[in-house]
Amino acid sequence: MKRTYIADLKDHVGQEVTIAGWLYNKRSSGKVRFVLVRDGTGICQATAFKPELDPAIFDLCDSLDQETSITVTGVVKAFEKAPGGFELGLKNLAIVGVSKDYPITPKEHGVAFLMENRHLWLRSSRQHAIMRIRHQVIRAVRDFFDDQGFTLIDSPILTANACEGTSTLFETEYFGEKAYLSQSGQLYNEAAAMAFGKVYCFGPTFRAEKSKTRRHLTEFWMVEPEVAFMDLEEDMDLAEAFIEFVVQRVLSRCAPELKVIERDVTKLANVKRPFPRLRYSDAMTFLAEKKAEFAKSDDEELRKLSADILKNGPGDDLGAADETAIGMSHDRPVMVHRYPAAVKAFYMKNDPADPNFALCVDVIAPEGVGEIIGGGQREEDLSVLEGKIAQHGLSGDAFKWYNDLRRYGSVPHSGFGMGIERMVGWVTGAHHVRETIPFPRMMEKIWP
Amino acid sequence: MKRTYIADLKDHVGQEVTIAGWLYNKRSSGKVRFVLVRDGTGICQATAFKPELDPAIFDLCDSLDQETSITVTGVVKAFEKAPGGFELGLKNLAIVGVSKDYPITPKEHGVAFLMENRHLWLRSSRQHAIMRIRHQVIRAVRDFFDDQGFTLIDSPILTANACEGTSTLFETEYFGEKAYLSQSGQLYNEAAAMAFGKVYCFGPTFRAEKSKTRRHLTEFWMVEPEVAFMDLEEDMDLAEAFIEFVVQRVLSRCAPELKVIERDVTKLANVKRPFPRLRYSDAMTFLAEKKAEFAKSDDEELRKLSADILKNGPGDDLGAADETAIGMSHDRPVMVHRYPAAVKAFYMKNDPADPNFALCVDVIAPEGVGEIIGGGQREEDLSVLEGKIAQHGLSGDAFKWYNDLRRYGSVPHSGFGMGIERMVGWVTGAHHVRETIPFPRMMEKIWP
Repeated sequence: MKRTYIADLKDHVGQEVTIAGWLYNKRSSGKVRFVLVRDGTGICQATAFKPELDPAIFDLCDSLDQETSITVTGVVKAFEKAPGGFELGLKNLAIVGVSKDYPITPKEHGVAFLMENRHLWLRSSRQHAIMRIRHQVIRAVRDFFDDQGFTLIDSPILTANACEGTSTLFETEYFGEKAYLSQSGQLYNEAAAMAFGKVYCFGPTFRAEKSKTRRHLTEFWMVEPEVAFMDLEEDMDLAEAFIEFVVQRVLSRCAPELKVIERDVTKLANVKRPFPRLRYSDAMTFLAEKKAEFAKSDDEELRKLSADILKNGPGDDLGAADETAIGMSHDRPVMVHRYPAAVKAFYMKNDPADPNFALCVDVIAPEGVGEIIGGGQREEDLSVLEGKIAQHGLSGDAFKWYNDLRRYGSVPHSGFGMGIERMVGWVTGAHHVRETIPFPRMMEKIWP
Repeated sequence: MKRTYIADLKDHVGQEVTIAGWLYNKRSSGKVRFVLVRDGTGICQATAFKPELDPAIFDLCDSLDQETSITVTGVVKAFEKAPGGFELGLKNLAIVGVSKDYPITPKEHGVAFLMENRHLWLRSSRQHAIMRIRHQVIRAVRDFFDDQGFTLIDSPILTANACEGTSTLFETEYFGEKAYLSQSGQLYNEAAAMAFGKVYCFGPTFRAEKSKTRRHLTEFWMVEPEVAFMDLEEDMDLAEAFIEFVVQRVLSRCAPELKVIERDVTKLANVKRPFPRLRYSDAMTFLAEKKAEFAKSDDEELRKLSADILKNGPGDDLGAADETAIGMSHDRPVMVHRYPAAVKAFYMKNDPADPNFALCVDVIAPEGVGEIIGGGQREEDLSVLEGKIAQHGLSGDAFKWYNDLRRYGSVPHSGFGMGIERMVGWVTGAHHVRETIPFPRMMEKIWP
């Protein structure tokens, strides 16, 4: 069948075309029927005038149910008020597949119901727009690294060693041995950086966490760059350039989708370098001030938040309330660096200026999104690294190959990881990450 | 540290720069030392003249071991005979990290040894070139679909239902339930095609097959497009346009890498549309002729192959020898279509012209690579599909959501899947797929 996509109608004004899609909506007014068709690339209004049509075709327009698949033939006209800016003067219409009692109607549905029907919910305009933005985020991520000469080195999903404890790992039997689903490609990335200089990996990662928050998925996509001869300061430069690029790309390419989801784009327009850089110790001072300030607020929400700020106590990782307080106080992401070494992973390099702190950075997004990037400089000294592995109670054998990277031409190196779903959550303003991935996997959700 | 990448030296002719990398090789000739440095973006020769240098620096050049990490400072000169076309007049050199007894030396090593040292083997020029080509293949794949308006819809890895039997599935516990690692995103892709029109997914897939052939990995990357309102003929059009695009892109962008691995590129230059299209029944006739022809050959290899041709018997799937015979008899991929329905998956649509055959296609690459694409048109009729699900002994419940796609506006639709590693194996001429992925996973290989 020769069919024209709705996104291409602009190239066919005055021509007769056939579009193929699904009934999105219909309206009727006297002798006129408006048939709205969606084909995945756009929505098009086809207008049927009773006096000009075979009565059977006209009646067919009235009989269509929501999501019936149809082909519609007609002449393309520019019409500013129509969705997409073009409409079809309907000449013919045929039903391809019926649709009786389509479960998702224009009325409000509960989230549980929509999640059970995720395979259909994706057809809805808001979910459609979010997924299109997700695609552009992913494309921007790849373009950013590809255009700067990074080599994509896919890290494995199935791994033999449980690098940071098994409590949050999915386990599988691998021909009689135990294997685990990867939580991060970083260790492999470090090997790749020594071979290719600048690398990134980008794939699904897995955490068997018993978390039910709006920020957690058990399966999510993560991009992780790693660069040889790069220190923490340059790592932060890379992270802020990267975030700016992705956000600005979405703004420039996804205007129609951002409009559909009614995103306040002024909040994204600000996302330009430089981002504030805050030492962990200064972040603590900042948070203590905010805690005091919010406690006195007339706003009950802020008083509640105040109670949760600095709950973890000094020397600990930041909590969700801490990240919220930092995020809401800035109009662009904040880079908090040099956390206490004790709360960070074994591979982080200690700050030579004060070894109690690690050369690491978390990037905290505004609008309550929380951490979107975690990264830092890696320990490159073999004996220090071996000491840390022992100190963390990890098996030395499992790290033999990883330690080789320090045996044969070790170099300073740094990188970071960014979770795609949190990034999409931020740029779309989706409150819950479950809407930012086509088929979300959560503690109680593995279907459809 | 201000450092210049070797790939960028062309922009710095006449300037003093510092490059940072690893000792790739060195040569000595009287008062001259040639220090070859690799930094992942290229290889650069730095030339040290004894009379012009601090004696300590000159001696350092002699002391360097393979893979020692170093920084080298000097002035960039164009020099056609040098690797990459530029060399550095060495002014300074510093060791960053030593490298004693680097295990991979220029002498020959066994594959088992190299695979155990995969984290280091990636630094070797051949492996480096193959991975760079892999990156360009992946980039070409994404560009092809992105530029044609496809939406990327990542399918989930963790799935609750074992769609085609559990014998080759990796299983994991999912918060008290059983879950499986995906073998294909196709079912999800079909849902996505009904929402977005043209979609693709692209991620790792898993097969717990007890195969030890050079064509099998347990973890491999697959790209799968799916298009609503597309029939088998258009599916074949898409597949051949796609393969041509990817191969020609590699030829145009990876000339240096193809040279490193000594690939005969004349065999790839032919890969232009149209590709031969062969019905399964005609393929059977063709194979019978080849079997007879090869049996009489003077070439022992061909006589051996002859014995294995058509071993499966008529009505069965093609075997490896069949694919080899078809591939070696053509200078570009061959599309074999309309296999017996009985040997294909339940979701394939039967050919209305003869329901014993399925509207499917396998694309067989030349040079003994075998099948690189499998695809076809999907059954869109609910009652026929339900019959097939029952006939295959599959649980109807597991497919409730999938069947919904036939309940609510079903349309004809088609797609295919291409394994990235076989594609990379073909374009690079790598004999074994283990060299086409950074960290291969095979039956007896999950480390490093």
